[in-house]
Amino acid sequence: MRISELARRSGVTVPTIKFYLRERLLPEGHLTSKTQAQYDESHLARLRLVRALLGPGGLSIVAARSVLDAIDDPPDTVHALLGAAAVTLRPPADEPTDHERVHELMRRWGWTVSLEDCATTHSALAEALSGLEAAEFELPDGLLDTYVRLISELADAELAGVPTESAAAAVRYVVLGTVLVEPLLLVLRRMAQQEASARRYL
Amino acid sequence: MRISELARRSGVTVPTIKFYLRERLLPEGHLTSKTQAQYDESHLARLRLVRALLGPGGLSIVAARSVLDAIDDPPDTVHALLGAAAVTLRPPADEPTDHERVHELMRRWGWTVSLEDCATTHSALAEALSGLEAAEFELPDGLLDTYVRLISELADAELAGVPTESAAAAVRYVVLGTVLVEPLLLVLRRMAQQEASARRYL
Repeated sequence: MRISELARRSGVTVPTIKFYLRERLLPEGHLTSKTQAQYDESHLARLRLVRALLGPGGLSIVAARSVLDAIDDPPDTVHALLGAAAVTLRPPADEPTDHERVHELMRRWGWTVSLEDCATTHSALAEALSGLEAAEFELPDGLLDTYVRLISELADAELAGVPTESAAAAVRYVVLGTVLVEPLLLVLRRMAQQEASARRYL
Repeated sequence: MRISELARRSGVTVPTIKFYLRERLLPEGHLTSKTQAQYDESHLARLRLVRALLGPGGLSIVAARSVLDAIDDPPDTVHALLGAAAVTLRPPADEPTDHERVHELMRRWGWTVSLEDCATTHSALAEALSGLEAAEFELPDGLLDTYVRLISELADAELAGVPTESAAAAVRYVVLGTVLVEPLLLVLRRMAQQEASARRYL
């Protein structure tokens, strides 16, 4: 199909499609003349994915490109993939990470993944904790451990669902599941808080 | 103290402090002459809070101002507060919300809070779900219900910690707990996935 047809079927305007092409979020079409390119169903599917990443997924152009690169050229193992999905985490601040504190917490939780594998997540954890401290917000006793217990159960359920029929399917599931499920989890938490609050206070 | 001293003690530059004053994120100091204002410990504490909301909290200026307004002029009930914290949710898209679908899910989960109370969360839930669909990402059977079960347990634990000694303390806990804990939960999920993946695949 031509770009105008791609626009009509996807609901994305031609200028926006051209922008995605320039930003390498969408692969070039097949050139049929110097100024005409043809697009197919794969372009339509990719366009839907790009819209979901930039819209509900809330990613920047750069982060969306990293996610798409991981999907197009997947790392060798599912485990390495989770590292690729971590690029979409907010980049750690310039401040040095308090590794000792993170390691102490990880020992307490029985977590073993080493620093080389997850410098980004370790920094992000240290930063999230120091954000709470900077605002003089103290988590009630035991709440952090409760978070870890419930979220570990959640991650187990998620990993159990990784499709095993093909590497491509596994990649898609892990990367999109990480990025696109975040807004879902955050809104479910708000709603669950409203429910708990209605039960307690109304 | 003068603004230069406030800058030194907070580690925030004078131009940035002036920007926060203009944006009403920080209350004016006490004027001692036409061009001199004095600041006190409350300004220092507020400045730390602003940094935490804009930095690790990841809020926009507008969202941070809403959060601070809710803290300064709290709604009457803890329940109404959760509504105020919801302003920091990404604003719902222009697309009409599929209320029927949200209501059906809420009935399934035994959730009862009515639409008037939470138009924002309902729209955000509909949007998160349609984001998954647009990307042709299907949650494995039962995973959505598992999310709701675990997150309800999490919200119960959070609400149980709301301090009851004063309304101001409750407000602070609810609003900051909602906003500042989000980055913590998201990074814990990434780390828990890495742990689960290491156990399964390494």
